[in-house]
Amino acid sequence: MSSSPQTRAPSPGIIFDTLQAYHRSVALRGGIDLNLFTAIAEGNHSLSAIAARIKASEKGTRVLCDYLTMIGFLVKQGGEYSLTPDSAAFLDRRSPAYMGSMANFLMSPHVAGMLENITDVIRHGGALPSDHGALEPEHPMWVDFARSMAPMMHMPAQLIAKMFAGSKPSKVLDISAGHGLYGIAFAQHNPGAKVVGLDWANVLEVAKENASKAGVADRYSTIAGSAFEVDLGSGYDIILMPNFLHHFDPATNEKLLRKVHAALGPEGIAIAPDFIPNEDRISPIRDAMFGIQMLGTPAGDVYTYSELEKMFRNAGFARSEMRELAPFPQRLVVSYK
Amino acid sequence: MSSSPQTRAPSPGIIFDTLQAYHRSVALRGGIDLNLFTAIAEGNHSLSAIAARIKASEKGTRVLCDYLTMIGFLVKQGGEYSLTPDSAAFLDRRSPAYMGSMANFLMSPHVAGMLENITDVIRHGGALPSDHGALEPEHPMWVDFARSMAPMMHMPAQLIAKMFAGSKPSKVLDISAGHGLYGIAFAQHNPGAKVVGLDWANVLEVAKENASKAGVADRYSTIAGSAFEVDLGSGYDIILMPNFLHHFDPATNEKLLRKVHAALGPEGIAIAPDFIPNEDRISPIRDAMFGIQMLGTPAGDVYTYSELEKMFRNAGFARSEMRELAPFPQRLVVSYK
Repeated sequence: MSSSPQTRAPSPGIIFDTLQAYHRSVALRGGIDLNLFTAIAEGNHSLSAIAARIKASEKGTRVLCDYLTMIGFLVKQGGEYSLTPDSAAFLDRRSPAYMGSMANFLMSPHVAGMLENITDVIRHGGALPSDHGALEPEHPMWVDFARSMAPMMHMPAQLIAKMFAGSKPSKVLDISAGHGLYGIAFAQHNPGAKVVGLDWANVLEVAKENASKAGVADRYSTIAGSAFEVDLGSGYDIILMPNFLHHFDPATNEKLLRKVHAALGPEGIAIAPDFIPNEDRISPIRDAMFGIQMLGTPAGDVYTYSELEKMFRNAGFARSEMRELAPFPQRLVVSYK
Repeated sequence: MSSSPQTRAPSPGIIFDTLQAYHRSVALRGGIDLNLFTAIAEGNHSLSAIAARIKASEKGTRVLCDYLTMIGFLVKQGGEYSLTPDSAAFLDRRSPAYMGSMANFLMSPHVAGMLENITDVIRHGGALPSDHGALEPEHPMWVDFARSMAPMMHMPAQLIAKMFAGSKPSKVLDISAGHGLYGIAFAQHNPGAKVVGLDWANVLEVAKENASKAGVADRYSTIAGSAFEVDLGSGYDIILMPNFLHHFDPATNEKLLRKVHAALGPEGIAIAPDFIPNEDRISPIRDAMFGIQMLGTPAGDVYTYSELEKMFRNAGFARSEMRELAPFPQRLVVSYK
């Protein structure tokens, strides 16, 4: 779906393809919802066997399998279908790294609906607050988020804990904990770490479940409410803010960061994993592309490192740095009190 | 958005990207609806100038322009945006080849809605007729189609007329004429051609407008109604069926083709431009991908050449052949009485 404008005559193909790119999302969601990938992983390779296993018509199964082959999720050979290594690792429901649940969030009416009136959103530079309740207390969208997106967050959470969990007794605060995986990873990597998850009460139920599953419930406590309103406590060694700053404008972020600065101990570190594009704002592509999703919120945006660094500096932090999370498509701002 | 499974560790990137591929469609529609491409073509290259011209916020314009750059519709250099050759040719409203109108059809509630319940559609092997009124008489979707998709059909219509219009007096029937461009091209290329457009009465208004614009209204007449029910007339040299057979199952198509066979003169030729995948059903990609859209109809499908050839043969045609329309992403079945 990219153009090579220098080497050929103009063609409307890219327009036709892009206006129908939504078919790709729809087809993948269909395959996930019908457990098509699991059916193939179980050894069903012919159309008739796959169709029988997923309880679907052979015609529908054929069209879906061919389409998923063309967009890179299946391999078709001699009329039989098999999984790609990516599909086998992440779309077979029996795989420990199963990520099909992401469809529930990324294509949910809440999330997709944010871009439904794209023309108005572009005109206004964001959604009208009245059109977007996601920042209201206890919005169920964040329970969906915590349940659906957790599998994708496992890897970056582990990477960050490896970098910063250390081995000394420590106090960790995880702001907008969601699924809780970022904070929980610190408890897993450091037996001396005590972790506090902060989020809405309904969302914290998911984080507590995950802390129990990870065997760290005895060192996991919670604060329910808005990070802007509750008492955060004090003396933290680490304060995590995963994917939080992109919801707010810079002034609001600075207000929060001043509160975070005050809650850190003297050697404290704030860590913000987020989508952080380069200064050109068009690379790396996954970080930069996140901007269109955030445009569908009242005040959200993707911020470059220089923009984030300024917010931390204005909030009183001594110095900041950026770290990569490759191969995961996000980056970290690390800021020192 | 394709995977190279042999050369790297499994990555969930393709899943994340594909579940958000609909952002691409939404962003392009936003750019088209706001006349962003026309604004840039007029000489507005800075964010402030573009935003002022399209009467949108600078933030929304910035996010949209960066996103459209990443998906291949703009070029960003030194903070300024310009059009790609494709965008300049087809998305500037002042261009004679403007095709932005395709968004009105390809992303309309009618068309997008066909795939909204993708899981049910795959299970049933198509839409329930009760969920899909598009084949009802005078459905307004086909007026939208005729108005929105005509610009894309200009090139294939001209290519086909060049191949088959000849120079002798001839009678041409255009079944499911829509915008009418396929039949009209025959009248343009052959001053001795008389063309009959067949479609619903509301759609024929668009075809008649286009015949007048092309200066061939005096040789353009119409038959209003369903091709399955009306008297087609007889003695035609050419009967066109552009993008029609993909709406029906093979038995229904054979019924129509028998009627077409009877309406042709002794040397008559039937021509069906359509999306025709290779026997592997996964190439060429644009032809093959059309299958998922057709799955959203009660009985539609994309047919390979061997399937179409059999329908024509069963309907009494002596022989068929396939022709390419490159660079346009469709092909022709040409069948001789």
